[in-house]
Amino acid sequence: MATTPRDNVLDWLRDAHGMEQQAESMLTAQAERLENYPDLRARIQQHIEETRWQQQQLEACISRLGGSTSTVKDLTGKLMAFGQGIVGMTMTDEVVKGALSGYVFENMEIASYTILIAAAEAVGDTATRDTCAAILNQEVAMARWLLEHLGPVTETFLLRDQTPGVQAKR
Amino acid sequence: MATTPRDNVLDWLRDAHGMEQQAESMLTAQAERLENYPDLRARIQQHIEETRWQQQQLEACISRLGGSTSTVKDLTGKLMAFGQGIVGMTMTDEVVKGALSGYVFENMEIASYTILIAAAEAVGDTATRDTCAAILNQEVAMARWLLEHLGPVTETFLLRDQTPGVQAKR
Repeated sequence: MATTPRDNVLDWLRDAHGMEQQAESMLTAQAERLENYPDLRARIQQHIEETRWQQQQLEACISRLGGSTSTVKDLTGKLMAFGQGIVGMTMTDEVVKGALSGYVFENMEIASYTILIAAAEAVGDTATRDTCAAILNQEVAMARWLLEHLGPVTETFLLRDQTPGVQAKR
Repeated sequence: MATTPRDNVLDWLRDAHGMEQQAESMLTAQAERLENYPDLRARIQQHIEETRWQQQQLEACISRLGGSTSTVKDLTGKLMAFGQGIVGMTMTDEVVKGALSGYVFENMEIASYTILIAAAEAVGDTATRDTCAAILNQEVAMARWLLEHLGPVTETFLLRDQTPGVQAKR
């Protein structure tokens, strides 16, 4: 059974839209819980705004191709469960695992937009390609920030965690 | 309740060991299913060997610190479920989602070893730090390879997928 490249682009755009909705939930939950890591919290809050803008951009691409954002595909469902699982966990090393999970999620987004850019290019949809390239830049910047801050966050966590009476995990 | 940095290092090493076991299962399942993407298959097979070596290195760090590899912590359990979910799914765009998932998993590993390197450094455990740095290099190389090949894999998939009678997804 053959599928047109355009159908694939539309499916992947829908996946990306569901992914950004999940990103917004996960980041919002993280930002609300963080108390002792102000830089991380501020960067997450900035990225929540970017994520909302990205959702609108993806919606515009999806309607231009005649689709709707109502359907969520298999992998997105799995990823959403994964993200919700992370948000719902109370871990003693919450801030470290949260930063790790945020970095992982960013890289899922980076891979998704890299695929979408190649696919949009293949079908000659330059508007979708340019939108995805603009979103990709924001994801790369966020991933880079998180990777650079994983070490410092870990060091702060370990210092606080060995001090009796000090809350380290968020 | 205070926790020593050394306890955290041991916990994270155990998480990493569980993660590499899950990586081996996921990569093995992917390599076995791929038929029409020989470069991707070969790179995955190479990384399966690296993953086995990494497990041994982590086991050595864990025993040196007086721990055992039997306990699997919360997040690792979630990640394992996530990996298994991906392996079990039959998707029409399996090869694309497989490459995406592989890239995501590599980045989870990259974040984990970045955290472990900072933590090992903080407790002055240079042997663990050096082991994790050696593993990190392999993960970065694999992640880079996958990111560079996501576009070409997508293009090949789209070409095969629009051709009647040609199997595209693996």
